[in-house]
Amino acid sequence: MTAHVATLLVACQDRKGLVASLAQVLYGHGANILDSDQHTDSVAGMFFQRLRFDLASLTTDRVSLETGIREVGERMAMDWKLSYANRVRRVAIFVSKQDHCLYDLLLRHRAGELACEIAMVISNHADAAPIAAHFGVPFHHLPVTAETRTAQEAAATELIEAAHIDLVVLARYMQILSAAFVAKYPSRIINIHHSFLPAFVGANPYKQAYEKGVKLIGATSHYVTADLDQGPIIEQATIRCSHRDSVEDLVRKGRDLEKRALAQAVRYHLEDRILLYAGKTVVFD
Amino acid sequence: MTAHVATLLVACQDRKGLVASLAQVLYGHGANILDSDQHTDSVAGMFFQRLRFDLASLTTDRVSLETGIREVGERMAMDWKLSYANRVRRVAIFVSKQDHCLYDLLLRHRAGELACEIAMVISNHADAAPIAAHFGVPFHHLPVTAETRTAQEAAATELIEAAHIDLVVLARYMQILSAAFVAKYPSRIINIHHSFLPAFVGANPYKQAYEKGVKLIGATSHYVTADLDQGPIIEQATIRCSHRDSVEDLVRKGRDLEKRALAQAVRYHLEDRILLYAGKTVVFD
Amino acid sequence: MTAHVATLLVACQDRKGLVASLAQVLYGHGANILDSDQHTDSVAGMFFQRLRFDLASLTTDRVSLETGIREVGERMAMDWKLSYANRVRRVAIFVSKQDHCLYDLLLRHRAGELACEIAMVISNHADAAPIAAHFGVPFHHLPVTAETRTAQEAAATELIEAAHIDLVVLARYMQILSAAFVAKYPSRIINIHHSFLPAFVGANPYKQAYEKGVKLIGATSHYVTADLDQGPIIEQATIRCSHRDSVEDLVRKGRDLEKRALAQAVRYHLEDRILLYAGKTVVFD
Amino acid sequence: MTAHVATLLVACQDRKGLVASLAQVLYGHGANILDSDQHTDSVAGMFFQRLRFDLASLTTDRVSLETGIREVGERMAMDWKLSYANRVRRVAIFVSKQDHCLYDLLLRHRAGELACEIAMVISNHADAAPIAAHFGVPFHHLPVTAETRTAQEAAATELIEAAHIDLVVLARYMQILSAAFVAKYPSRIINIHHSFLPAFVGANPYKQAYEKGVKLIGATSHYVTADLDQGPIIEQATIRCSHRDSVEDLVRKGRDLEKRALAQAVRYHLEDRILLYAGKTVVFD
Repeated sequence: MTAHVATLLVACQDRKGLVASLAQVLYGHGANILDSDQHTDSVAGMFFQRLRFDLASLTTDRVSLETGIREVGERMAMDWKLSYANRVRRVAIFVSKQDHCLYDLLLRHRAGELACEIAMVISNHADAAPIAAHFGVPFHHLPVTAETRTAQEAAATELIEAAHIDLVVLARYMQILSAAFVAKYPSRIINIHHSFLPAFVGANPYKQAYEKGVKLIGATSHYVTADLDQGPIIEQATIRCSHRDSVEDLVRKGRDLEKRALAQAVRYHLEDRILLYAGKTVVFD
Repeated sequence: MTAHVATLLVACQDRKGLVASLAQVLYGHGANILDSDQHTDSVAGMFFQRLRFDLASLTTDRVSLETGIREVGERMAMDWKLSYANRVRRVAIFVSKQDHCLYDLLLRHRAGELACEIAMVISNHADAAPIAAHFGVPFHHLPVTAETRTAQEAAATELIEAAHIDLVVLARYMQILSAAFVAKYPSRIINIHHSFLPAFVGANPYKQAYEKGVKLIGATSHYVTADLDQGPIIEQATIRCSHRDSVEDLVRKGRDLEKRALAQAVRYHLEDRILLYAGKTVVFD
Repeated sequence: MTAHVATLLVACQDRKGLVASLAQVLYGHGANILDSDQHTDSVAGMFFQRLRFDLASLTTDRVSLETGIREVGERMAMDWKLSYANRVRRVAIFVSKQDHCLYDLLLRHRAGELACEIAMVISNHADAAPIAAHFGVPFHHLPVTAETRTAQEAAATELIEAAHIDLVVLARYMQILSAAFVAKYPSRIINIHHSFLPAFVGANPYKQAYEKGVKLIGATSHYVTADLDQGPIIEQATIRCSHRDSVEDLVRKGRDLEKRALAQAVRYHLEDRILLYAGKTVVFD
Repeated sequence: MTAHVATLLVACQDRKGLVASLAQVLYGHGANILDSDQHTDSVAGMFFQRLRFDLASLTTDRVSLETGIREVGERMAMDWKLSYANRVRRVAIFVSKQDHCLYDLLLRHRAGELACEIAMVISNHADAAPIAAHFGVPFHHLPVTAETRTAQEAAATELIEAAHIDLVVLARYMQILSAAFVAKYPSRIINIHHSFLPAFVGANPYKQAYEKGVKLIGATSHYVTADLDQGPIIEQATIRCSHRDSVEDLVRKGRDLEKRALAQAVRYHLEDRILLYAGKTVVFD
């Protein structure tokens, strides 16, 4: 039923006639707009739009429609991206020993919350193998040490390429990826950091939070860039804590935040709800 | 600067070409779309849109633009409403003895959060007179008893009509308005109820909440209809409570919720963000 | 390490000397108080206390300590309950087809969040069998129809009794238990209802919420009593929703609330944090 | 009615018998415990307690009771502080041009939420004079420049000393107090910072948040120490934001957070709910 649906994401300098031009092209080809969300950043002078439309009523074909969009895009100097719902995205999940985010993503996927195929689980430990098996997902154990990092990432890259992976999700993967690896997948790697960034970057954020005596802890999902914990933020969540909470309590409370903030980010990405500019995100939710 | 801005609200049966037609008309007259928000209720088959656009670049004039919109509206069988930002809305606040929502609205207005003129405060008690005076707002004391209700509402109506009031805000006004009065101002009276409706309708919701032992209390702002506490909900807020909270604590915590939920609703209304259908609201926030 | 810990829950008419008497008894036997939480309901004239203490430093023995507590309890007309952490509680989870709460409880248990043994999963459907197997928990398939309810509940009772179950958790068990069954386990059955009670009792609360057009949905965990959806509330959670959310979206958002509100209630119960009176709960969190 | 109430705050190294000793002393003098809240930090080996009790039933007198507490305090090496509810605290509010926190505190005080006398408003600008007048609070205009800071703080100190001020509240006071001034009032100056510390210290936190693209903004109330924005955190609050929020929108949303986080901290302080250690707070709420 949603197989006939497409999503168009657009970013460009703001100017008159943008909404009309895009709407006109879609209408001209018989596409019916289901959702339209638009944002103008008047400070940056930028225009952003997400259009979701039904192709079932198309009076031409996909090639003609794309040609029409391409023409408008060139005339208006737009960055644009068109996705078809029947082209199912392929996701690879990277995980280490902590499995709460892995389980959460697999369960949400099975419940129909995440429109994708989870094509593989990659881990530097063997622990998650039975979990992947339980959900019928291929599992690859790629151990890593400081010496073998390059080779391990090469092996991961090979798996990713062979399986035509669209999105890599770091579900509490406790290894720092090399700049070279990250550069291969711009805006296609999502990480979860267990603090409300920019507070508590780096290691042991819950311990840092405990020592600082904050009254709220948080979690942040973001795209991975070469700068550790500095990529564009997609989603954040916080929960109250108090002097009664030990570091272990913060870890427990934080797991809930991590699961939600990561799953939300993955869902937004898969539904083409995210645009990037100036190191931050527009999320059409 | 925002004096040249207009907002168009549209509701109609869903069909193809709606977005394109409206965008085309605005573009044809040289209006620049600043914000566009759209919603399709596929269950009800309804289409809703809010368009905010700049008139400074208009190549025709307002009359022509309105004619253009009217033509599209008739062809597409749309309900539509066009508002100009330079036509400042006029608000009357009704209050009884509790003044926290009154203060909150007056302070937010002064801080520039509410785009309107607060034209008068009407109360069945004299207590709020110094508050109105402090903010330079005319105050009308209209006492009421069961016997004088009709006359009191007639006096209020006269004040409202004489001052060309657009919106009546019941800021903890502890009198039940007659069906006749309510009928005069459809979707133009906003009330705050001190519970998360539909829980705890009627009197003393905090006492009801205390006795029920709920772990969250709430507040609900809604349009006033003939059915008490049943009008379309605009905004709701909740806060945690516990066995430690007495009824007085719930009242204290609730004041914060009431202020926020009411002010938010008034802001949404004044910024033409609300559409009504099927006894509920579409709020483009 | 926590094997030497005990928890004392006390409820009685308020009077002077209660805190001193209990603290004195514990001190007199060499027990070291780790946590002490107390609440006085001055309206009801009731006193409640939770004392968690270390037995490792006991200068007498458990029998003497219990005798001491019993003496104070009788003198002060207290209801009291003493639990030892090394007596692990045994939990039975009832589930139907929806498995998100079941997975959540099993995962939290494995992560060490729930101090109990999950002794069995009982279901009226076979679907959850592989889940129980994955976590190494015995599974019992007890199908039920209107005609077989009495026999099915008898079979469940037999399993519960044979396994010395302390707590029954209804993790989206979509059958209404008979008054006779409920009466067997007072304050020992916890249910999750998918609305912020007392709003939307009964069937299809998300559909009710959708039709009412609320701006927040909720979930409520509570002890089960003979009155459907009326038992003492333990925990509630809410999340924002909007006109954009279909019933399916509310169901998806609600799953997160249900998981959290149910797991929290189970944890509170297992840690002896809940006292009951006047149809509501004191939760020492 | 609450005039007969006293509150005892205690901090010391953890050891056996602390709860019993204090409860025994209170009972011995006929004081009735209304609330008892206790916390043990097992990592730091510290014990904290708050006892609120009724003196109406005292069988001795206040002097004897204090002597009793002093004896226990010395034996157990306790830091302790006893406050009588009938000794009303005196508060000075410092403010600059932004008045939302000032209004909020004055209104909450008038509504009975803050058990204190607001003895004066001090400002480096004249703008708040009519607000202080409206609430009948003395106003002192103390302008300040880089050159006159020492003299201005001396004038403020004189006012504070003359009026026997117990607590100084910086309600968006946009001047940095000298280390010398701060040192005079340890744990007696509360500030509101408009970010969720430790994120966005220093100037323009809303602008920093906007540029970082966070999805939550926050506010933090804390005791003022010599290190700017580094004092012990008392309360924090966050609210969601998105790409739609301009810096001005963040400022508007933030005002609500600032008011709540500051008022909450002031209330906790006035009700003797806060203990300090290791650069952070224990808040018995």
